[in-house]
Amino acid sequence: MRNEKLIHALGNCINHCNYCADACLDEDNVKMMVTCIRTDRVCAEVCSTLSQVLATSYSDVQGLVDYCKKICEACAEECSKHEHQHCQDCAEACRKCAEACAAYAA
Amino acid sequence: MRNEKLIHALGNCINHCNYCADACLDEDNVKMMVTCIRTDRVCAEVCSTLSQVLATSYSDVQGLVDYCKKICEACAEECSKHEHQHCQDCAEACRKCAEACAAYAA
Amino acid sequence: MRNEKLIHALGNCINHCNYCADACLDEDNVKMMVTCIRTDRVCAEVCSTLSQVLATSYSDVQGLVDYCKKICEACAEECSKHEHQHCQDCAEACRKCAEACAAYAA
Amino acid sequence: MRNEKLIHALGNCINHCNYCADACLDEDNVKMMVTCIRTDRVCAEVCSTLSQVLATSYSDVQGLVDYCKKICEACAEECSKHEHQHCQDCAEACRKCAEACAAYAA
Repeated sequence: MRNEKLIHALGNCINHCNYCADACLDEDNVKMMVTCIRTDRVCAEVCSTLSQVLATSYSDVQGLVDYCKKICEACAEECSKHEHQHCQDCAEACRKCAEACAAYAA
Repeated sequence: MRNEKLIHALGNCINHCNYCADACLDEDNVKMMVTCIRTDRVCAEVCSTLSQVLATSYSDVQGLVDYCKKICEACAEECSKHEHQHCQDCAEACRKCAEACAAYAA
Repeated sequence: MRNEKLIHALGNCINHCNYCADACLDEDNVKMMVTCIRTDRVCAEVCSTLSQVLATSYSDVQGLVDYCKKICEACAEECSKHEHQHCQDCAEACRKCAEACAAYAA
Repeated sequence: MRNEKLIHALGNCINHCNYCADACLDEDNVKMMVTCIRTDRVCAEVCSTLSQVLATSYSDVQGLVDYCKKICEACAEECSKHEHQHCQDCAEACRKCAEACAAYAA
């Protein structure tokens, strides 16, 4: 499949962001998790769209890859601030996805 | 609601792109509609994500608005080449959405 | 456009659910809004898929319409418990969407 | 992660459906691929929503799992009619996803 490596990284990132956003809601300190929940949501949504677009042969995708890399980096940075396992795992998935975006662009 | 004008234009564009992409499949000259179907799909997907992101208070959205404007313009141009009513209607919805993206950016 | 009435109700419901889910995150009593946020998210997601499927001529949709009606009713009930304007507005949008699902089924 | 097995099968199914739908557009006999393209699209969309809902702790999901199983079976059946490799691969991904839906329900 076309763009398989980046699509795989996106899928992993989507799942972790969706899971982290929901798991944050059940944390005692949910007030402190608000930015994490919000960033997770935006990141999952943007990654999902990029994944669908990359499955097509539509060629003008660089602007979307760049934006996706940025939100993945922002989400990795936010998630890495929190000690919850789901946040740490999500940060790792976002970092890898940002790297895959960078590799695609190169 | 926050960003209501652009979100309304995006919703209209999403619906027309989804409908046009499917209606193109039933045209006799489907072979000639391939680029239209593909562009409709990418446009609907990007508009849907922007709409969701704009409903949040996430602030770093300009890159996504810019990309959305570009795909709306590309989709308007492609759809306007075809005489089918669904293509003409979709071109109009995409044009208005591109304008709403530009107005948001300004 | 095909199924225009239900697609319009779905679009309105999606926007209110997305907005309400995010606005809840900024409420002082965010701990009390957790179920509302979660239900909003599921409702927006299911409505968005139904909207896309209804734009096609794919015919076996009743199971999805039924599920959508149920989540809209659940979301209306949850949102109506909270006094925030975004919750009350969302409850109303969900109720109307559940009614549009019922009318479609009839 | 919660529901990891089904979420993995859904992710694989989404990617194959998105890819197959687009690859069908480039086939010489695109007229014969119309039902395949349409079913792929609906299947990808429904799987994507189920994947997101399963990442949450929202509990009333059975109706959506049942509908997803049905569209995966329909998509597997349609794709298996065509000899293109992307159709055959997609049929296999849909079949596995339908089985994962059945296993979840059990």
